[in-house]
Amino acid sequence: MIASSLVSASVVVAAAQAADPLPSWNGGQARQSIVAFVEKVTTPGSPDFVPVPERIAVFDNDGTLWCEQPAPVQLYFALDRVKALAPQHPEWKDQEPFASLLKGDVKAALAGGERALLELLAATHTGMTSDEFSAIVKDWIATAKHPTTGKLYTDMVYQPMLELVAYLRANGFKTFIVSGGGIEFMRAWTERVYGIPPEQVVGSSVKTKLEMRDGKPVIVRLPEVNFNDDKAGKVIGIYEHIGRRPIAAFGNAVGDQQMLEYTQGGSGARFELLVLHDDAAREFAYGPTRGLPVAKTGGAFTPALEEHARKDGWTVVSMKSDWKVVYPASTR
Amino acid sequence: MIASSLVSASVVVAAAQAADPLPSWNGGQARQSIVAFVEKVTTPGSPDFVPVPERIAVFDNDGTLWCEQPAPVQLYFALDRVKALAPQHPEWKDQEPFASLLKGDVKAALAGGERALLELLAATHTGMTSDEFSAIVKDWIATAKHPTTGKLYTDMVYQPMLELVAYLRANGFKTFIVSGGGIEFMRAWTERVYGIPPEQVVGSSVKTKLEMRDGKPVIVRLPEVNFNDDKAGKVIGIYEHIGRRPIAAFGNAVGDQQMLEYTQGGSGARFELLVLHDDAAREFAYGPTRGLPVAKTGGAFTPALEEHARKDGWTVVSMKSDWKVVYPASTR
Repeated sequence: MIASSLVSASVVVAAAQAADPLPSWNGGQARQSIVAFVEKVTTPGSPDFVPVPERIAVFDNDGTLWCEQPAPVQLYFALDRVKALAPQHPEWKDQEPFASLLKGDVKAALAGGERALLELLAATHTGMTSDEFSAIVKDWIATAKHPTTGKLYTDMVYQPMLELVAYLRANGFKTFIVSGGGIEFMRAWTERVYGIPPEQVVGSSVKTKLEMRDGKPVIVRLPEVNFNDDKAGKVIGIYEHIGRRPIAAFGNAVGDQQMLEYTQGGSGARFELLVLHDDAAREFAYGPTRGLPVAKTGGAFTPALEEHARKDGWTVVSMKSDWKVVYPASTR
Repeated sequence: MIASSLVSASVVVAAAQAADPLPSWNGGQARQSIVAFVEKVTTPGSPDFVPVPERIAVFDNDGTLWCEQPAPVQLYFALDRVKALAPQHPEWKDQEPFASLLKGDVKAALAGGERALLELLAATHTGMTSDEFSAIVKDWIATAKHPTTGKLYTDMVYQPMLELVAYLRANGFKTFIVSGGGIEFMRAWTERVYGIPPEQVVGSSVKTKLEMRDGKPVIVRLPEVNFNDDKAGKVIGIYEHIGRRPIAAFGNAVGDQQMLEYTQGGSGARFELLVLHDDAAREFAYGPTRGLPVAKTGGAFTPALEEHARKDGWTVVSMKSDWKVVYPASTR
């Protein structure tokens, strides 16, 4: 009995050691650079060893952890909210950006620029309590489908990135999202989908205030931007929320550049990675040689960003050649 | 050998189970209410069971985790910075609040109210990079001594509260500081002193900006208030940083009232506690029947707050009768 238990235990350990933590990654340079970094910062006695509390990794969300094409998911949420709320707002028939949106003309609606986006944000993301907003997002994301693939948005997360997040966590990293997207929009589902809890999500936000309703304190969302977590804002967001410099950063667009530079600017071993969307067959192709179909906060992976990555030694992941699969197996 | 190992293991387990997690607490109602709460939310199958990710506990800092008398520690830090910087600022000799401070007259300096405090904050907490500020705080707190006890400030943390924080953590709670104090002032030492990492510290902040210096990105601290984490601000700070409602909250003054109310306002088992400073012999006495010697952001434990606690069933800890010791043994 004892002997057989010992044998079983050894087998389990060997299997765990042999198990590939990144099964959806091909064996190219991107994968090698990830594994080499994790091994050197976690090997006791290594000159690059980093104590567990300092193993902070930050991930952009749109285009880095899940699909952002043909438009960011949060924009589809806003459009669906406009449709759902339209019966209570007959005036929207003659009022932009709502009139165009209700006619299905997103391009005309967004021609109003930042002002149109802010009106859309105010109408769809504010005025309710924090608990009500969270419930609205949870209900929506449980059933909303992507316009071209027909999949749930939460089934369009990148399987190789899920493995990477889990691999870092298994190696003592604390994983954070640092996204230009709405912080409370993401917090409603990131724990379930990525295993990243609300307190490890950093994002853009609206102002809020404390109010008493029926003798209970509630937080009410106000139609005013509080923080824009994009470009330099991502570094400020990291400082405010995390309070220390990450040692690893993952992004896909010019909105992530400062976050990667700031990560790289610390002392000791550092890791920076950009996801290059070059896989039109399995996802969307909008790399350096292509314009981005819909304007996106934070912008695209530009030729300048590609040059920057090359110069600074950032790892660039080709979705086409570095990833065996794009989406989780159950939904492929 | 095997038999004796098994016996040793059993002894160790029994000792661990028998070990008192709160040895500095007397066996009164306060202690009982803490233990009863923790047991009911952590017992699987209990109607009050709370899953680990939702076990969020928030602690005020000044007067709840460490001594805030005769004035908050951060004010002493600012005063010492004024003295250290005075040679570079000859104009301060004739300029309030600095002139009074340099003469040692804190009361006259603070007579300038909020404007004087903001000038003091700007002169002592801003203008440098985030890394420089963190280093200044770390250097200062390693040697600075309390004006009446002569102890290091970090030796004037409350031993029973250290035990309580550790007890909650051992039971799957994530512990956060939510303080009116400066977020970066606290982050420089809370991990070492309380075991609370920077990303679990919420506090007041100044605005910051990203700058390139010598080709490296740095964060520069600006002389403008960004967020006041006090009273209703504590609830907003919790929403922004943590993104879910705590199930336990610990404070000592009117600045904590909204945070405790918000905690209590959620569904399921909740716990709220106030530390009452009624121990003039071992610490300071400034409870409901006494005025507070130095004005403090967030104010004191007022008679109205005591009445509020009684009405809402909040646990009130008498330092005098509930705590066997106040400060850690090595420094008592």
